[in-house]
Amino acid sequence: MRAIDLNCDLGESFGRYTMGLDDQVIPLVSSVNVACGMHAGDPMVMRRTVRMATQAGVAIGAHPGYPDLQGFGRRDMNLSPDEAYSFVLYQIGALAGFCAAEGARLHHVKPHGQLYNRAAADRALADAIAAAVRDFDPQLVLVGLAGGQLVEAGESLGLRCASEFFADRNYTDEGVLAPRSMPNATLTDEAFAVKRAVRAVREGTIESITGKTIRVSADTICTHGDNVRALEFVRELRCALEEANVEIKPV
Amino acid sequence: MRAIDLNCDLGESFGRYTMGLDDQVIPLVSSVNVACGMHAGDPMVMRRTVRMATQAGVAIGAHPGYPDLQGFGRRDMNLSPDEAYSFVLYQIGALAGFCAAEGARLHHVKPHGQLYNRAAADRALADAIAAAVRDFDPQLVLVGLAGGQLVEAGESLGLRCASEFFADRNYTDEGVLAPRSMPNATLTDEAFAVKRAVRAVREGTIESITGKTIRVSADTICTHGDNVRALEFVRELRCALEEANVEIKPV
Amino acid sequence: MRAIDLNCDLGESFGRYTMGLDDQVIPLVSSVNVACGMHAGDPMVMRRTVRMATQAGVAIGAHPGYPDLQGFGRRDMNLSPDEAYSFVLYQIGALAGFCAAEGARLHHVKPHGQLYNRAAADRALADAIAAAVRDFDPQLVLVGLAGGQLVEAGESLGLRCASEFFADRNYTDEGVLAPRSMPNATLTDEAFAVKRAVRAVREGTIESITGKTIRVSADTICTHGDNVRALEFVRELRCALEEANVEIKPV
Amino acid sequence: MRAIDLNCDLGESFGRYTMGLDDQVIPLVSSVNVACGMHAGDPMVMRRTVRMATQAGVAIGAHPGYPDLQGFGRRDMNLSPDEAYSFVLYQIGALAGFCAAEGARLHHVKPHGQLYNRAAADRALADAIAAAVRDFDPQLVLVGLAGGQLVEAGESLGLRCASEFFADRNYTDEGVLAPRSMPNATLTDEAFAVKRAVRAVREGTIESITGKTIRVSADTICTHGDNVRALEFVRELRCALEEANVEIKPV
Repeated sequence: MRAIDLNCDLGESFGRYTMGLDDQVIPLVSSVNVACGMHAGDPMVMRRTVRMATQAGVAIGAHPGYPDLQGFGRRDMNLSPDEAYSFVLYQIGALAGFCAAEGARLHHVKPHGQLYNRAAADRALADAIAAAVRDFDPQLVLVGLAGGQLVEAGESLGLRCASEFFADRNYTDEGVLAPRSMPNATLTDEAFAVKRAVRAVREGTIESITGKTIRVSADTICTHGDNVRALEFVRELRCALEEANVEIKPV
Repeated sequence: MRAIDLNCDLGESFGRYTMGLDDQVIPLVSSVNVACGMHAGDPMVMRRTVRMATQAGVAIGAHPGYPDLQGFGRRDMNLSPDEAYSFVLYQIGALAGFCAAEGARLHHVKPHGQLYNRAAADRALADAIAAAVRDFDPQLVLVGLAGGQLVEAGESLGLRCASEFFADRNYTDEGVLAPRSMPNATLTDEAFAVKRAVRAVREGTIESITGKTIRVSADTICTHGDNVRALEFVRELRCALEEANVEIKPV
Repeated sequence: MRAIDLNCDLGESFGRYTMGLDDQVIPLVSSVNVACGMHAGDPMVMRRTVRMATQAGVAIGAHPGYPDLQGFGRRDMNLSPDEAYSFVLYQIGALAGFCAAEGARLHHVKPHGQLYNRAAADRALADAIAAAVRDFDPQLVLVGLAGGQLVEAGESLGLRCASEFFADRNYTDEGVLAPRSMPNATLTDEAFAVKRAVRAVREGTIESITGKTIRVSADTICTHGDNVRALEFVRELRCALEEANVEIKPV
Repeated sequence: MRAIDLNCDLGESFGRYTMGLDDQVIPLVSSVNVACGMHAGDPMVMRRTVRMATQAGVAIGAHPGYPDLQGFGRRDMNLSPDEAYSFVLYQIGALAGFCAAEGARLHHVKPHGQLYNRAAADRALADAIAAAVRDFDPQLVLVGLAGGQLVEAGESLGLRCASEFFADRNYTDEGVLAPRSMPNATLTDEAFAVKRAVRAVREGTIESITGKTIRVSADTICTHGDNVRALEFVRELRCALEEANVEIKPV
């Protein structure tokens, strides 16, 4: 029986600012990536989120990002590899503190936003992130874009890595994410997206943006809990995976 | 043979801003309190500081403070106990991450600045800080003002606590720090300060601001590495303690 | 014909975090207080908000707060008067920059949250804030709690001041806001609140929390645009004031 | 008689962190660029700096930078033109507030660090910065790299612009700054640097990094006040310019 992880970013509220339907998406996924106070989240939000995740029994990951709350970690910032190492290690440690206090175990690390994107393409940055994960705890799973540099960097350091598949994004014939600047970069037909994801998990192949069959790796699927419609999509995806005899569980 | 710990706050640089003669004071003390990025310090500084301390073999402590870099954690902020718990836990975790990466062990926690002062007097705040320390790792030593609420709170949770003595500050007849608003709150006669500290360690008594003999607890003495003169004072204090057959080592 | 100002705090969104139904409340009020990037707001939000307010023709005020985004400026912080002066001046200047760019005129200053509360009771802080306003532009209107120190400080510096009345809060027999810790600190009967506000504007008197008739000053009434119900209350208040022949316009 | 401006960045201290020998460099220059709280500086530092500059009679400019205190505004950040417009306008306004309070006039704007570098090469960013300056006050002088996009953008909006010359940096045959990655990017022979600067001002030409004579624009020369040696260089430069009958005054 095949298995797949469904992951979701959460804990992105900050002070009086709320974001995400965290309590509603947690029961639908098998792992969560918790913001660590740099691009989103704050210590109270982290504590609450880790507690919720612990009670729900989902795998908890750190979701480190650029130190740019105003830009939500989505603006490119030119951190040197040494800076990236230190910022990532800081955030992993901070989240692990809340895990320790709640009796939970930190399970994985998945970079956020532009740090994630850049780490998929920039090997020096990827190496720095992977080294921070390994130096903190070599048992952690490192999550990166399928086929990207981060997964390669992690594997070369002996880390268990998980390739992430995006259910709602189109892929080029080369198997990389279609840039957001392309028309049809994002899938709008949800039924098709669900079907494509199930095929990706069961067969390791999908239809590319040009209609060609290409191979993809998918250890974990990125889902969203921002709004009611996003939740509905996770429900449908989960349901379709279960009907296809795919077990949903952490990597 | 009696023993005492000499501690020093460091890792207070931030970005391009440098503060403290960290490399010069480390060889003179037995434990260091490392800023954790909220009132001072940043991830690169933390990494460098933990590495230096590890190589020197001194005990490493977290030095959590209020989230107020501009005020250096010295301005009063009204954090609720729950907020204080979470902010302290966050900072301990972050620093412990760097310890893990450097193969060091986090040894103690000493709050910084106004968080330290307020925790000495406010039991609810003290309880929150002590709970954060215990929930992270009950083996950690909690450092607080001798006779203050933080030490009491820590002991009531079963933590090992260390009472801090200030070599350069006067004490009232009641054995509490003379408020900075009092004349003579700070000792200016360094030779007297050294002699008084040695007596505090050996006999557990000092002369109060009025000249009365009072009892003090002293597990660790606060020293400073801000400038050349401060370093000189630590050297003299260390020398006098060794001559008095007091061993200098972590709590 | 009597006149009253209805004011509302807005521009409190930050980065990807949204707060407040700004576009819906602006048409209902005569003046707005725009967050200046310290407790809420950011440069893009400020620009957008000033533009919206300019187009709607409402009076624009700066809404400076403590430098504490995570606490939304509602946590007490112990700024010295000199610090408060500088932080307030900074924020007024920043907002005035956006007014200049949009061809609008900065009309007033109303401190936010705990800075507002503390300035009502602490004369040294009130003096510092009033001095910052005067030093920036002595034509600005300073808005403070009716009967509080900020209004007195402003008047003693020759500033035009506006006394703020809270439509949804109870007042003690002494005419000060009933502390939130008291039962019934907040009015829940909206019809009564509307009637009381109209009476406050027309007669300068209200029923205190104990039922006694007391005098109140009301140059401007604080309203909220946080949610649909708050908007409905502003609509009803506005309607009742107009029916009572009270003109709604800036101070 | 020829004239030149000597400018210096200052007001870069932050909270308890001090940077720069501001009081010593001010008497040596004719204009200063004051940090505005994003990459350096804070409201108290800005107030103090504007006061010092006002008393010394030097021209005061805003020195807006990226919102990255930890990186001192020297790390590349990918702000959109709209974001850059708003962040620059915010910082100009904030500094102008302190000028108003001190009875001074804001004279110019010079972007800091990586914002400066990028604005020299990226026309969309340059246009956004120039628009922010013009929208705040079209009388302001915009300072940019000689021959760069920012000066062109400012001129196309009708702003008075000043071309900045770097006394301590080598230039390529094309008249652009030799990248720091090149050997000899920085001049180490101070006597040569002084002579070259005087020639640049008097004749509009310098020797390039290859020894070729090239044309340069120089309305203002960038100087530094970070340390004693930098101050000495400014003194020598100033002296040589005066001996060459060049008047030192703001643009």
